[in-house]
Amino acid sequence: MLEDILKQVQTGSLSIEEAKGKLATYENLGFAKVDHHRKKRQGFPEVIYGEGKTKEQILSIINAIRSKGNNVLVTRITEDKALHILNEYPEFTYNEIAQILFWKDKKQVVESESYIAIVCAGTSDLKVAEEAAITAEALGANVRRFYDVGVAGIHRLFDSIEEIQNATVSVVVAGMEGALPSVVGGLVNHPVLAVPTSVGYGANFNGLSALLTMLNSCASGISVVNIDNGFGAAYNAVLIHQLAQKGENQK
Amino acid sequence: MLEDILKQVQTGSLSIEEAKGKLATYENLGFAKVDHHRKKRQGFPEVIYGEGKTKEQILSIINAIRSKGNNVLVTRITEDKALHILNEYPEFTYNEIAQILFWKDKKQVVESESYIAIVCAGTSDLKVAEEAAITAEALGANVRRFYDVGVAGIHRLFDSIEEIQNATVSVVVAGMEGALPSVVGGLVNHPVLAVPTSVGYGANFNGLSALLTMLNSCASGISVVNIDNGFGAAYNAVLIHQLAQKGENQK
Amino acid sequence: MLEDILKQVQTGSLSIEEAKGKLATYENLGFAKVDHHRKKRQGFPEVIYGEGKTKEQILSIINAIRSKGNNVLVTRITEDKALHILNEYPEFTYNEIAQILFWKDKKQVVESESYIAIVCAGTSDLKVAEEAAITAEALGANVRRFYDVGVAGIHRLFDSIEEIQNATVSVVVAGMEGALPSVVGGLVNHPVLAVPTSVGYGANFNGLSALLTMLNSCASGISVVNIDNGFGAAYNAVLIHQLAQKGENQK
Amino acid sequence: MLEDILKQVQTGSLSIEEAKGKLATYENLGFAKVDHHRKKRQGFPEVIYGEGKTKEQILSIINAIRSKGNNVLVTRITEDKALHILNEYPEFTYNEIAQILFWKDKKQVVESESYIAIVCAGTSDLKVAEEAAITAEALGANVRRFYDVGVAGIHRLFDSIEEIQNATVSVVVAGMEGALPSVVGGLVNHPVLAVPTSVGYGANFNGLSALLTMLNSCASGISVVNIDNGFGAAYNAVLIHQLAQKGENQK
Amino acid sequence: MLEDILKQVQTGSLSIEEAKGKLATYENLGFAKVDHHRKKRQGFPEVIYGEGKTKEQILSIINAIRSKGNNVLVTRITEDKALHILNEYPEFTYNEIAQILFWKDKKQVVESESYIAIVCAGTSDLKVAEEAAITAEALGANVRRFYDVGVAGIHRLFDSIEEIQNATVSVVVAGMEGALPSVVGGLVNHPVLAVPTSVGYGANFNGLSALLTMLNSCASGISVVNIDNGFGAAYNAVLIHQLAQKGENQK
Amino acid sequence: MLEDILKQVQTGSLSIEEAKGKLATYENLGFAKVDHHRKKRQGFPEVIYGEGKTKEQILSIINAIRSKGNNVLVTRITEDKALHILNEYPEFTYNEIAQILFWKDKKQVVESESYIAIVCAGTSDLKVAEEAAITAEALGANVRRFYDVGVAGIHRLFDSIEEIQNATVSVVVAGMEGALPSVVGGLVNHPVLAVPTSVGYGANFNGLSALLTMLNSCASGISVVNIDNGFGAAYNAVLIHQLAQKGENQK
Amino acid sequence: MLEDILKQVQTGSLSIEEAKGKLATYENLGFAKVDHHRKKRQGFPEVIYGEGKTKEQILSIINAIRSKGNNVLVTRITEDKALHILNEYPEFTYNEIAQILFWKDKKQVVESESYIAIVCAGTSDLKVAEEAAITAEALGANVRRFYDVGVAGIHRLFDSIEEIQNATVSVVVAGMEGALPSVVGGLVNHPVLAVPTSVGYGANFNGLSALLTMLNSCASGISVVNIDNGFGAAYNAVLIHQLAQKGENQK
Amino acid sequence: MLEDILKQVQTGSLSIEEAKGKLATYENLGFAKVDHHRKKRQGFPEVIYGEGKTKEQILSIINAIRSKGNNVLVTRITEDKALHILNEYPEFTYNEIAQILFWKDKKQVVESESYIAIVCAGTSDLKVAEEAAITAEALGANVRRFYDVGVAGIHRLFDSIEEIQNATVSVVVAGMEGALPSVVGGLVNHPVLAVPTSVGYGANFNGLSALLTMLNSCASGISVVNIDNGFGAAYNAVLIHQLAQKGENQK
Repeated sequence: MLEDILKQVQTGSLSIEEAKGKLATYENLGFAKVDHHRKKRQGFPEVIYGEGKTKEQILSIINAIRSKGNNVLVTRITEDKALHILNEYPEFTYNEIAQILFWKDKKQVVESESYIAIVCAGTSDLKVAEEAAITAEALGANVRRFYDVGVAGIHRLFDSIEEIQNATVSVVVAGMEGALPSVVGGLVNHPVLAVPTSVGYGANFNGLSALLTMLNSCASGISVVNIDNGFGAAYNAVLIHQLAQKGENQK
Repeated sequence: MLEDILKQVQTGSLSIEEAKGKLATYENLGFAKVDHHRKKRQGFPEVIYGEGKTKEQILSIINAIRSKGNNVLVTRITEDKALHILNEYPEFTYNEIAQILFWKDKKQVVESESYIAIVCAGTSDLKVAEEAAITAEALGANVRRFYDVGVAGIHRLFDSIEEIQNATVSVVVAGMEGALPSVVGGLVNHPVLAVPTSVGYGANFNGLSALLTMLNSCASGISVVNIDNGFGAAYNAVLIHQLAQKGENQK
Repeated sequence: MLEDILKQVQTGSLSIEEAKGKLATYENLGFAKVDHHRKKRQGFPEVIYGEGKTKEQILSIINAIRSKGNNVLVTRITEDKALHILNEYPEFTYNEIAQILFWKDKKQVVESESYIAIVCAGTSDLKVAEEAAITAEALGANVRRFYDVGVAGIHRLFDSIEEIQNATVSVVVAGMEGALPSVVGGLVNHPVLAVPTSVGYGANFNGLSALLTMLNSCASGISVVNIDNGFGAAYNAVLIHQLAQKGENQK
Repeated sequence: MLEDILKQVQTGSLSIEEAKGKLATYENLGFAKVDHHRKKRQGFPEVIYGEGKTKEQILSIINAIRSKGNNVLVTRITEDKALHILNEYPEFTYNEIAQILFWKDKKQVVESESYIAIVCAGTSDLKVAEEAAITAEALGANVRRFYDVGVAGIHRLFDSIEEIQNATVSVVVAGMEGALPSVVGGLVNHPVLAVPTSVGYGANFNGLSALLTMLNSCASGISVVNIDNGFGAAYNAVLIHQLAQKGENQK
Repeated sequence: MLEDILKQVQTGSLSIEEAKGKLATYENLGFAKVDHHRKKRQGFPEVIYGEGKTKEQILSIINAIRSKGNNVLVTRITEDKALHILNEYPEFTYNEIAQILFWKDKKQVVESESYIAIVCAGTSDLKVAEEAAITAEALGANVRRFYDVGVAGIHRLFDSIEEIQNATVSVVVAGMEGALPSVVGGLVNHPVLAVPTSVGYGANFNGLSALLTMLNSCASGISVVNIDNGFGAAYNAVLIHQLAQKGENQK
Repeated sequence: MLEDILKQVQTGSLSIEEAKGKLATYENLGFAKVDHHRKKRQGFPEVIYGEGKTKEQILSIINAIRSKGNNVLVTRITEDKALHILNEYPEFTYNEIAQILFWKDKKQVVESESYIAIVCAGTSDLKVAEEAAITAEALGANVRRFYDVGVAGIHRLFDSIEEIQNATVSVVVAGMEGALPSVVGGLVNHPVLAVPTSVGYGANFNGLSALLTMLNSCASGISVVNIDNGFGAAYNAVLIHQLAQKGENQK
Repeated sequence: MLEDILKQVQTGSLSIEEAKGKLATYENLGFAKVDHHRKKRQGFPEVIYGEGKTKEQILSIINAIRSKGNNVLVTRITEDKALHILNEYPEFTYNEIAQILFWKDKKQVVESESYIAIVCAGTSDLKVAEEAAITAEALGANVRRFYDVGVAGIHRLFDSIEEIQNATVSVVVAGMEGALPSVVGGLVNHPVLAVPTSVGYGANFNGLSALLTMLNSCASGISVVNIDNGFGAAYNAVLIHQLAQKGENQK
Repeated sequence: MLEDILKQVQTGSLSIEEAKGKLATYENLGFAKVDHHRKKRQGFPEVIYGEGKTKEQILSIINAIRSKGNNVLVTRITEDKALHILNEYPEFTYNEIAQILFWKDKKQVVESESYIAIVCAGTSDLKVAEEAAITAEALGANVRRFYDVGVAGIHRLFDSIEEIQNATVSVVVAGMEGALPSVVGGLVNHPVLAVPTSVGYGANFNGLSALLTMLNSCASGISVVNIDNGFGAAYNAVLIHQLAQKGENQK
């Protein structure tokens, strides 16, 4: 990148002023460009955090993204705002539980047998689990859901444990005491992304309890994202999943 | 109690001044006396919290207790202090890991097949688990130990689960993320006393993490005591155990 | 359980595929089955946490439970949702203060003179105390209520202290400074389940103050449940109560 | 004060420069002077906080105070430092438990029958209670001690309750759950100064538990000082005690 | 009290059953009766905490109090509820800012020149300051208000400092950084009751900031009540004020 | 696994008692065995947490591991303890800064050009960074270190950014404000494991500050481990790294 | 000031009573007057904190300020209240995003080339950034805005870094992890005022995360104001800016 | 900077490889170079944080700095380490209270009448105040100290207030309740840098109390640095002071 610009300066095909402009903007900085390119190659959409933005603002950002032909992923978007967007882009998909609106170019979708496991403790954590699941799907990964398998009825987890073990990576969502990731982490040998939720009451302190539990897990292979951050866990999981898939696809 | 005093007043065998004295001191208050008597009947020792007391102070309290023929239980007592006491009372038993010194009248010990399960997550929680186990034994209960069965290797718990299920009550000790009581609570149908320990580092915050986990447990039948309070959990467990045993023994 | 399956395999009355299926589902796992059976024998209903569920969801879960002839207990259910259920099941009982809806098979109710004491500091803690009382009753226990006996007017507690002492187990509910369980714990010799409430203001921090008070109680025999968790305390109390009753009934 | 200066300016006995100097220094500011005078009239010593000061520093401050004939009170002073001072001032009194060194002019001591009650929950809170008691005595008040009357054995409190009720003001010291001030506050009708101590472990969080308990007390007439601040509570109590005594002495 | 009962038993004018009944209820317990009597003699109303009670509940409590001829003080009562009460008791006084409704027997009011100083940092702390001021007045004390004298414009405080110094006791109300009690405490030589308010934003944490400031004050003679607890500070102040007045009135 | 046992039962080569024994121990549970096997195939050592264990305990655990021919990794082991082990096993490697002792079978080491980037903010975070680096190397991964590239001199990071971008996965270690992972996360498109350290003072609160920063990162692709948990981050990183390598090696 | 009063006393043109009055009110205190005068000379408006005040209260304060001809700045004022004021003072300016209403005398505005940089991490922090920007402008300073340059896309910051470096002082606003001030602080050599915002969710804890990050910044030259306190940062920045400008203007 | 490199490429005096090298290292990045130069022009030393570094490490860093002729400032350096350095560099100055070692080129010192005020609440905050004072002097500023002027004796502050008002900028250091910056901030019209200290006990929570007080100050013009960070406050103050001095020197 940088070499090209310098060569053009050397050969005179680029004036110093023009070169300065290019080097001064991030568009042309080596690291930024690479970053930008790779993400596109991976079929990653540009992500919009919908909370606190008006439907008009969201629409105008989408217009900009679509004009470049890129995929779109909007998180934390209410149904009311989503309907406004769907009016313009009826080909988009909206998931009400996950509060996610997205569109992806089907030609980019890679067929694969490997999958991400989304494991969820209780039905009240569903919203966060679905934010993770839909995000992962919107980012192009296969997903399998294992819901309502919390530690208070640990036997339910064992029905599914082999299928969870065969995943590339697990996202484990839990509120209240947040013990599920520790148990899963002790049973699988792939990376586990733990998501504490704010579900609970009293000394739960809006998810603090589950967050501390997960950070202190004595099982190896667990890392943690912010409270209720299903999107963040899924984004991480897909990055890992793609690393693993690269190998498989090359087989 | 009260009736006796009033009768003696009525019959003149007690002057008003004497009656006032009796009613004014707790020694004669109905609730206190009953309390005092019941505890003795159960063979409960008087408990001394050893931390912050000199060996001379502990010895003089023990002398007072022994002079009434009562059992003795000293918790949080260092080996150095214990040796000082053992010099006077060689018949006492000292447990170094639990830091407990005790003596109980063997004639009071009741034979029983029922037992309290002391379940412990990791070897580093041993000290607290032993404080619970020795306390329960000193208070006259049978105890079975299930150690190093933390959730990171949940299969180890399942080897012992039937034996744990058959206990009258469980004391479950765990540090770090403190998830073990939730798992045990989901597998047994007797009361579970959860003891968070201060074992761990970083965001463990000296046991706060495990404490919050246990308070927020989504399994039913769990109650919690203070961080590292093995004694408190065992004391509770023995109260419950005696309620259960009363029936069995009457069979 | 396990033995039965293996025998059937041995004698050929069960194919390996069938045996694998049975062993692979929790329905057939030793510990789960026992658990399930015992709870039924004790007349325990299946408990539904009503908060965050729609009335339709609650109804369909109830339908499933009732179809097996089991008892029902729904906690944290608003009057509006309860009326919806009562329309279908007019034989159910709804308690508005406790926000509990339940039904139990009267044939399972065991006559007994022993009872659980529900002790409550102030009138503003009533809601949590009633959640405990109604839960205990729905689970089949006798209950006696001792309300408005907080430590600021400690003499009121002494009017009732003998009756509290004669209970099998106490549930003590308190907000603000949460000192009542310590006082009760010093006067009784049975287990005390302490419930901190979020009642109070300022440095109460939504029940944290009362929670810490109870965890640090210097009286023995006290264990603690989550803030406002009247249900959890009652569930614990009934487990203890049944252990005690077993003996009595066998007399 | 101010008037005097202005009059001297008016009459020319004070130059403007001199007047400016006087008004510019706090020594001559109305509020400061009055403050200074009243404290002396009350026989209040100047207080030195000993922690973090060398014995040489403490001695030189004492020399300055004594050179004006004032009383002396040094808090948080170790025995080693105190001995250094006692070498110079053998007439001083040192209390090892309270870690207080003081001297007061006996001619200033006022005879009185009224007293301050120092009430203390457990023996481990003794150090703080003694800091309060010795401070109050050094400040010229009568003190009666009521120790080891914590809520876990509430009957012990009732033996002394009448004598506590007859005090002018109470200082109530408690660690662990800190419930004692609430109970005392409900039984007396004079002001109660509550002192949380850092005694305890686990979820006591170095006195936070007791502090929150006392701030949230549902009994009226209680105010709180910092954790372990026996001196502060006693200073407050003596201010209140003197207000009450003024009336009595004028009878 | 107790003596009377015993005498009646001795002389046979009271049966043992009747005596037991009397001794078993707090009405006849020595400490409770004295307490009850003294409060009445001081003209103290019975206090009702209005928050969380319906207007019907409040009215029925008031009816009970008034039927015994006692004074009434209702705190934290909204205008809507107050109007409901005023309909029945038009002679009551309602203060909208303080949210207090009260009535006192004018014959009990004692004339006095001494007063309580209510000092307030900012206009946004007014509500809490008025709760304190109206409470003190309802409890029979003279009050002088010193409002909007926060430390950010310390000169305003100095205009009033002499008048504050001449009070018997000060209640100092402050939110945000809560520094005012320290400054006042350094300028007066009577007791200071500090009230932190929840006024502020960000790292104020609902009054925690001001609370910690006041607990850590380096000025002597300051004690603290709960956040926003104007009532508690005033109740304390009146107890102190009455101790001081007793003397003055006897002059 | 399970099928084998059942078949042996069916054919009579295994008695029911023997089958029960096998199914009852975790050694034979499907998920456990697989887990165990996979870890061995990957050349993962068994990890010993050295803190709180005596050198004799550590040695005896190592003896057991080595007797099965497995690799060894001991974390948080002081030099003194390590020397004791090295006496027996001179072929082991000890790293003093990381406080890690390990041994790995060189035949298992896989040659690879891919690497894990260990990025570290300040020299005072070195200890944690080295725990991560040595752990990763002991687990068989290539590692490249990028130290002292904290955000206060962000230009230093840019010198190495391309090399960091080309890693498979990054472990980013930072204390104080903990901002480095956010910056790195915005510049790379692989997973970032963030490790907060307890380095700092004052409002750092032993790493809480850095921990919260990392959890709240607005950059995607970041997950967090416990404070100072360099081992945990590296373990995670190696799991991810192996997923990626599998593909490459198969090329 | 003081000298004048004393001289008048000396010459008899001021009575002692009058002098006392003057010296007793802050209007005449040396430090207050100077303060008052300087602020006016700098063209500083009197600031009104609009939150919690009615529109009528705000209007009456404005009337008082305008009657003395002073500038006006109202912060945290809703559009509804602002319209009420604008009805009376149509020459005022209202900024809806910053929720600021102000008026300044244009004759006082000083022309200058130097400026304050307002740097802002994300669009959701805009409200706080604009409160800072509009405040600074209302106080008479030039401002340049650098928005949406958060650390997750650090390259965007570098486009503007030279222009930020040339400012006199920077106000840096950031929510979530709050890392931006550290990065800016490492790139500029003028003072940086950091403003944490409450933007974020989960473990953000209403801005605590960003606040701690900024306090722990390892870059020199950074100081911090309260969460969301854009006004406070701007006020500080303008004080610094004026110090710098004084020199420039004197050139 | 950038332009120069591009011109050299254009004219062929720099190869593309050389240009890439230059642009790739921070040494040549525009912003970094400028930064570096400006700091030198201001006579700023390079600062070494001494805590956690060995005396050998510190010495070798100093050697590197001195070899370029730069000034040196080492903070948090114990006397023992300092003596080691002074052996090599006897011309350095060590301040034991501030624990600072420094050297500055006297030729760079600028004569000036303006000064920074270092204001300190209590003698126990001295260490932090001196860290600030010596740092400011080492960085080339005049400093005036105003110590022991805490709010509990506010009159002492007024003796010095005019001299504090005439400073360019104030650093105000306070522990315990931390109220001093608010009071000073209300009396001066220049920027105030507030430094909370960890001095205090109980609910001081290692400086948290003072930190929150300062962040919530209702006085304008105050910003805050980390607990005990005297160096940080002084560094900030000197940046502001130099901005102000530039003007004065140009007069």
